[in-house]
Amino acid sequence: MSTSVSIELTRFENGDRKELREDVVAAEEPLEIRVEGQAISIVMRTPGHDRELAAGFLLSEGVIKSAKDVFDITTCVGQTGLEKSNAVDAALVHPEAFDLTRFSRHVVTSSSCGICGTTSIESILGFRAPLTDEWQIDPQILFALPAQLMRRQETFQSTGGLHACALFDRKGRFLALREDVGRHNALDKLIGWALLKKRTPLREHLVILSGRASFEMMQKAHSAGIAMVAAISAPSSLAVEFARASGQTLAGFLRGRSMNVYAGAQRLAG
Amino acid sequence: MSTSVSIELTRFENGDRKELREDVVAAEEPLEIRVEGQAISIVMRTPGHDRELAAGFLLSEGVIKSAKDVFDITTCVGQTGLEKSNAVDAALVHPEAFDLTRFSRHVVTSSSCGICGTTSIESILGFRAPLTDEWQIDPQILFALPAQLMRRQETFQSTGGLHACALFDRKGRFLALREDVGRHNALDKLIGWALLKKRTPLREHLVILSGRASFEMMQKAHSAGIAMVAAISAPSSLAVEFARASGQTLAGFLRGRSMNVYAGAQRLAG
Repeated sequence: MSTSVSIELTRFENGDRKELREDVVAAEEPLEIRVEGQAISIVMRTPGHDRELAAGFLLSEGVIKSAKDVFDITTCVGQTGLEKSNAVDAALVHPEAFDLTRFSRHVVTSSSCGICGTTSIESILGFRAPLTDEWQIDPQILFALPAQLMRRQETFQSTGGLHACALFDRKGRFLALREDVGRHNALDKLIGWALLKKRTPLREHLVILSGRASFEMMQKAHSAGIAMVAAISAPSSLAVEFARASGQTLAGFLRGRSMNVYAGAQRLAG
Repeated sequence: MSTSVSIELTRFENGDRKELREDVVAAEEPLEIRVEGQAISIVMRTPGHDRELAAGFLLSEGVIKSAKDVFDITTCVGQTGLEKSNAVDAALVHPEAFDLTRFSRHVVTSSSCGICGTTSIESILGFRAPLTDEWQIDPQILFALPAQLMRRQETFQSTGGLHACALFDRKGRFLALREDVGRHNALDKLIGWALLKKRTPLREHLVILSGRASFEMMQKAHSAGIAMVAAISAPSSLAVEFARASGQTLAGFLRGRSMNVYAGAQRLAG
């Protein structure tokens, strides 16, 4: 288990496309948390310290009250029986007192069943089809967008406490911006804005994220047909993997006239 | 509905305690998302654009495939019948095709039932008792901890993509640090570390967060008995409200020899 993953990317510096290079991104993989063999949650996490993650999760969710309630937490073995899987199982001292129906939270419906026994991106993608729209954007347009995002982030200016995302078309025309304490909410609001205006699926549009790009952000963008996501900060490994499988363009560290393009670089002209 | 909330705090500057002052923090409140009258999720969000949030959430979770599947999304009225509540309801064009059992995700067990119909912090706190431990820490010790957090954040240094949190005792002695792509996971791992070592409940300990402090971060800390949380960045309104009700000390913008103390300032000596 590694907390970071080496990945190939296309680097743009001072506005120019450079050669391919390698860089490391933070590892993100699903972990299924089981109690007495029954899945109660799937969390997207950085591998490592999984038993601790499960223990802390069980305490803060109220499944257990103290260390005395846990008999053991074990990492499940994978399908071959040799390697560790992305699943942990907690055995309780009083299993008869555990009520599964109270803990149905977090189980990711669209990606449940088997995603944690494998590392297969296909099972996470599920039924969703790759985006095949072949359009291009001038990178110079892209470099100008973070400044627009910053300028329009009203509440962040006063509180320093909100994530933001903004929707643009491929000419760089601003369409909408939403802010929220939760990054997923900000993107849901933006996509919901388009949906309620009956503009989804969004074709030839891109989203700029004020922070990092995770798997879930790519998945949400994909559900609205958004083929390009550019983040001011870093992507996770699973965001990159998802983007490559889903046909999305994913850029990170979009700052000044530089960026890293992790997937779908063909949509950047020049 | 406001995206920010004015709040009273104790400011420390250049190491010295200043007078009380007002500042604004990002608003965070629960929103219950219902489909055909049935709750499928509770999300902690910044109020505003709630119908959009629900629409985007339903699309990205696969409850709906397009705008054509939604008949209407309405904001529910509150208990008096006059004010808006923290709940939205989606009516579907084909309600008979909706399978509630597939969408049990996100429903916060420990705080379900009624939390969205009210703004009562008691209902969110639930059965959890306030922390009454009366101990103090020298603010000068606190000011030295962010540098330790930064120095020990190994994976962040290489990827720029991880949240971190670290546990210290009130003498400023380092105990553990965990990193993760998800801030909640990082804290769960840290708490799980203590739990598996049979050191919970943690008394006279504090946690330093690399980012922002949300309601859920305070709730997790509380579940482990942690009475002090200090964040490098901003807190949300509900984090502050929770800390005041739970007896926790909450500091934000801990940078250099300055910080804002939003709750529990009596634990800071001098």
